[in-house]
Amino acid sequence: MNEIRVIQWGLGAMGSGMARLIQSKTGLKIVYAYDQDPQKIGQDLGEFLGGVKSGVRIQRPPQPGEMNLEKADLVILATSSFTKEVTPQIEIALKHSLNVISIAEEMAYPWAQEPELAMHIDGLAREYGVSVLGTGINPGFVLDTLILALTGTCLAVDKIKAARINDLSPFGPTVMQTQGVGVSAEAFEAGLQSGRIVGHVGFKESLYLLAKTLGWKLDKIEETRFPIISKVKRETAYVKVEPGQVAGCQHTAIGYVDGVPKIELIHPQQVLPHLEGIETGDYIDISGQPDIHLAIKPEIPGGLGTMAMAVNMIPQVLAARPGLLSMAELPVPAALMGDIRELLAWRKGE
Amino acid sequence: MNEIRVIQWGLGAMGSGMARLIQSKTGLKIVYAYDQDPQKIGQDLGEFLGGVKSGVRIQRPPQPGEMNLEKADLVILATSSFTKEVTPQIEIALKHSLNVISIAEEMAYPWAQEPELAMHIDGLAREYGVSVLGTGINPGFVLDTLILALTGTCLAVDKIKAARINDLSPFGPTVMQTQGVGVSAEAFEAGLQSGRIVGHVGFKESLYLLAKTLGWKLDKIEETRFPIISKVKRETAYVKVEPGQVAGCQHTAIGYVDGVPKIELIHPQQVLPHLEGIETGDYIDISGQPDIHLAIKPEIPGGLGTMAMAVNMIPQVLAARPGLLSMAELPVPAALMGDIRELLAWRKGE
Repeated sequence: MNEIRVIQWGLGAMGSGMARLIQSKTGLKIVYAYDQDPQKIGQDLGEFLGGVKSGVRIQRPPQPGEMNLEKADLVILATSSFTKEVTPQIEIALKHSLNVISIAEEMAYPWAQEPELAMHIDGLAREYGVSVLGTGINPGFVLDTLILALTGTCLAVDKIKAARINDLSPFGPTVMQTQGVGVSAEAFEAGLQSGRIVGHVGFKESLYLLAKTLGWKLDKIEETRFPIISKVKRETAYVKVEPGQVAGCQHTAIGYVDGVPKIELIHPQQVLPHLEGIETGDYIDISGQPDIHLAIKPEIPGGLGTMAMAVNMIPQVLAARPGLLSMAELPVPAALMGDIRELLAWRKGE
Repeated sequence: MNEIRVIQWGLGAMGSGMARLIQSKTGLKIVYAYDQDPQKIGQDLGEFLGGVKSGVRIQRPPQPGEMNLEKADLVILATSSFTKEVTPQIEIALKHSLNVISIAEEMAYPWAQEPELAMHIDGLAREYGVSVLGTGINPGFVLDTLILALTGTCLAVDKIKAARINDLSPFGPTVMQTQGVGVSAEAFEAGLQSGRIVGHVGFKESLYLLAKTLGWKLDKIEETRFPIISKVKRETAYVKVEPGQVAGCQHTAIGYVDGVPKIELIHPQQVLPHLEGIETGDYIDISGQPDIHLAIKPEIPGGLGTMAMAVNMIPQVLAARPGLLSMAELPVPAALMGDIRELLAWRKGE
């Protein structure tokens, strides 16, 4: 049986991690690797990833009409957070009848913010008989898929409240900037106004995916972002926060159904929260029949979790019906510990 | 759009709860109700359930060849824990091209203990173009589906340990007997030998389903059952336990892969564990990349959870490919809060 042939598109921190993960799995093989960084182009992928020569040379990403994607099964896209930016890449893949898994946050449920692009992608995927999935740790799992799974044990759900409290310490300058870490309260406000500080990307996607799957119709979403002002000195390899400065962004989103707040998602992202006694974790509280209270401590790490979700969902995507799909429409994720070819045959009912 | 027509087969505590739940959902309708209890046969289902007249009269279950099942979409079976006992009922349903959801514990993964019956059911379901699912809270969710979902966030999994610590207080005489509650340690041993005391039904199903989905090959399962000797007096509506008597059954199962214990499932079932300071809950610990520690406190209630899972999975089952399926092969469960007809159309990609 031939290996499942993967194209790794994007070799930043996430993409490189996924490429290493794919190399570690039985029955999976990277046949092309793309990145736009001139310093990466031309290098051997295996050596670039810190291992032995792989025989796959990193290339610049293909343009529309370029036909070197034919001998593959699936593209993993790790290039951007936004549906608009990945749509041209997805188009190229679909027109070569390749399945797609994207970690763009907005692709977790592109119907939320880009319904026209979502319809376009869905139509193309059906036309070419392949499937497209957006996934990741969040959106993609903690504040949507995992919540949905728990509601499956409820006769009825009245209200959902969930929080992901994490530590941004491992992340570099870009994340520090988009979360406003290390600036003054005034600079944080200015950053929110200018769009330099954005908080979490993915609340709208999680909220619409939750509502769609449960059968609720959202009539309004309210998002708030405020600065987490540090009481203590916090310092990482990338940033210093003095007392009185901003340690991160407390970002909250509330989804309303018939004017009533039904889903509240909270995601304070900061460096070193334990210095003020805050325990990181993923927390879900469902009010319903029955009430359910879940805690995962510490939180599932964002980087590893996103890499894992994208690669572990490969058999589910390859076995799915054609179209643009979401985590709610595919079988539960599961770690890929065996030969993916056997797992895929089982999922296909062969 | 016509309502989804359900046959409720079995009207014990679970079946009655599911029938009430179905009545509460938009787009679902019970068209036949079966039970073998002569006292129930002939009663109006709605009145039997404590509500208003429904126009559906409770009938004795159909025999093979009886053809009154044609105008329905799906059967919910709540009659027995064992694949052998439900197979004839499933056969009748399949031969009328009806989808089936069973809460028989062994049906959560009948390939574990009844591979020949599983193959037979799978073949029939494919022949008639319908789907069969076994589900419930456990097996079906806590010690299998939920564990799988968490492993989806792992690059690799080394070992899984999970415990469901619950309180049997709400349950009646049958459960007290099968768990050995209220007997002496000697009587407990004798009950295990005679098969009167069984502990949890479902460990083999959960273990094989976990292993199959992850891609591990189990080479051995070890189960142990020992009495939980109470240090204090415990009393419920159905049983009295004196200090020194048995408060319940501590049942453990370990699945080995290549001679190494990889999955350890622990399910101590007893009455009133809090009297000895034991906190009930569902606990999952995954050793891998990353490690994950989950706690749901208190545990998801078994009765409500099982009813909910069976009814909430209806759209997933109706949208699935034909065959005998498991929770690992279907989309994540989710509470049914909207019109099931819209949710079904969405799941089918219409």
